Amino acid sequence: MPMKKFINKPENLVGELLEGMGLAHSKQLKLGKQKLIVRARPKNKRKVALVTLGGSGHEPALSGWVGKGMLDISVPGEIFAAPGPPRVIAALRKAAKGREAGVLFIVLNHAGDVMTANIVMQMVEKEGLKVKQILTHEDISASDPAERRGLSGALIVTKCAGAAAEEGRSLDDCLAIAQRVQDNMATLAVAVSAATHPSTGQPIFTMPDDEMNVGMGQHGEAGGGAMKLKTADETADIMLPLLLADRKIQQGEKVLLMLNGTGSTTLMELYIVLRRCKQILDAKGIEMARAVVGEFLTVQEMGGFQMVIARMDDELLRLWDAPCSSPALTMTK
Amino acid sequence: MPMKKFINKPENLVGELLEGMGLAHSKQLKLGKQKLIVRARPKNKRKVALVTLGGSGHEPALSGWVGKGMLDISVPGEIFAAPGPPRVIAALRKAAKGREAGVLFIVLNHAGDVMTANIVMQMVEKEGLKVKQILTHEDISASDPAERRGLSGALIVTKCAGAAAEEGRSLDDCLAIAQRVQDNMATLAVAVSAATHPSTGQPIFTMPDDEMNVGMGQHGEAGGGAMKLKTADETADIMLPLLLADRKIQQGEKVLLMLNGTGSTTLMELYIVLRRCKQILDAKGIEMARAVVGEFLTVQEMGGFQMVIARMDDELLRLWDAPCSSPALTMTK
Repeated sequence: MPMKKFINKPENLVGELLEGMGLAHSKQLKLGKQKLIVRARPKNKRKVALVTLGGSGHEPALSGWVGKGMLDISVPGEIFAAPGPPRVIAALRKAAKGREAGVLFIVLNHAGDVMTANIVMQMVEKEGLKVKQILTHEDISASDPAERRGLSGALIVTKCAGAAAEEGRSLDDCLAIAQRVQDNMATLAVAVSAATHPSTGQPIFTMPDDEMNVGMGQHGEAGGGAMKLKTADETADIMLPLLLADRKIQQGEKVLLMLNGTGSTTLMELYIVLRRCKQILDAKGIEMARAVVGEFLTVQEMGGFQMVIARMDDELLRLWDAPCSSPALTMTK
Repeated sequence: MPMKKFINKPENLVGELLEGMGLAHSKQLKLGKQKLIVRARPKNKRKVALVTLGGSGHEPALSGWVGKGMLDISVPGEIFAAPGPPRVIAALRKAAKGREAGVLFIVLNHAGDVMTANIVMQMVEKEGLKVKQILTHEDISASDPAERRGLSGALIVTKCAGAAAEEGRSLDDCLAIAQRVQDNMATLAVAVSAATHPSTGQPIFTMPDDEMNVGMGQHGEAGGGAMKLKTADETADIMLPLLLADRKIQQGEKVLLMLNGTGSTTLMELYIVLRRCKQILDAKGIEMARAVVGEFLTVQEMGGFQMVIARMDDELLRLWDAPCSSPALTMTK
């Protein structure tokens, strides 16, 4: 069965998509040397730079998070695969050059990304570059914190740390803010239908027609939460309390709630789920201080979404509200 | 086979999704009386107001186009169905009240929407309300201009007219600008896979596994362009020249090119198609002055996209570039 995707030769996929991304968002970013996605106007060398790496096929993530108040450089890999160390080192050197403020290096916890990041951090430390790393790992489907994957909550880390950088905060401050978001957030994914790997044309997993899976990872990693399909309200009733319990979020606290569609699940559905989440939070006396709904990190046409909850304080709310301009997220005053 | 959508009871679908939409985008819009979606901060009564109507199930359209520099009020119908006249009349009265500048009423050419609009326009004229209507109908899959459907090109009409309204231009000026965009744009859709009607759980059309259809409408209306699946480049090579020929766009002219994903087709694919469109335009000496890629008007999880081309002049480019803030489109200076 032929794949119903608008692509050309699989070997050119990533180069072609990055070329188009640069054309589509030329005010915000551009495709630079070595297939790095860099800010279109990276003039401010006084601020801390934010750099990340990650596989392609999750558009707009992660390269679509590049822009004012967000990332400075993204190093995209092949489809669902981390980039190798050389291009990441090149990106960190480029970001660090002439920048006394230093570089915050954001890594989402996936085996390949972490392997690359570890090699890269050893090398940049030898070179004496001012780079500090933050690892995001907020997927509560793994009980062992060290094994928790980094999912779309990285957007909140990036937004808050990016706003701090724009304010002229130090690298230590930006790292502390990123770490505070990471430590106060939790994510859980639910999948209802598979994605097709665009290079091979094969589904990345299979799922029975009457089932969904809570906790499934971004590449079809087992979540352990296979169950019969549920309504929107039932799904929220299962997922949100797990997230609140994991972070011990209590009555009187403020949260940001994010619903990230992973592909073929519609905004319509996410709005219906959000409405139920608000009811649950209201009943618990927890304030939904901010909500964000959209497609920020997708898995091709995979049906489902990621629910992210983040405990917010006044400083994080201020940083979240700061203006930004990237393809995935643009906010005005 | 159960539907893989996160919904509750079909009869509550639209009310629940609109409630969630209001919660998700509270800075930009709110759910008002009679299920109208209105701007969160509609303070400026001196400017021309923009109002539209249309079926739900196309999120973020049309209610997600409400916000600064875009629409003032959207009247959402049930799934894929126009709202009846009473709520639309209520919206126009609300918009016109205390507003000397008047109201621009944007209607996309679909039978139900036009039927409602015709009744409504007769009534508001009797009431003496200052309302003028613009009909968008740019889908070139019908050769008879009167039968051309209004597709996602309405976003460009809304953006340019909305910017003109924010500048304080008169109703006649806003109408003339909207009409100029309408007359200079052309859209063609391609579908590769069907959508499920969220109320019935049934596919809205069927399509062979190895086929796509150029010209198919937003609700599965026949396009007449059934053909074997093509690559991204081949698809662009078929569609873009038809659009350019229809509007007689020549060497030396400037265009805005928009790719609107209708559901499960990824941003990745749209970027690849955009890249090819740029090559085609370059070869013809036509300047791709602006590009916009995203999901602005969807058809549930339907696979495919709409390609829109609009001939731009200096004034339209300035209006397109003006800041705006709506869930579907936010632009900064």
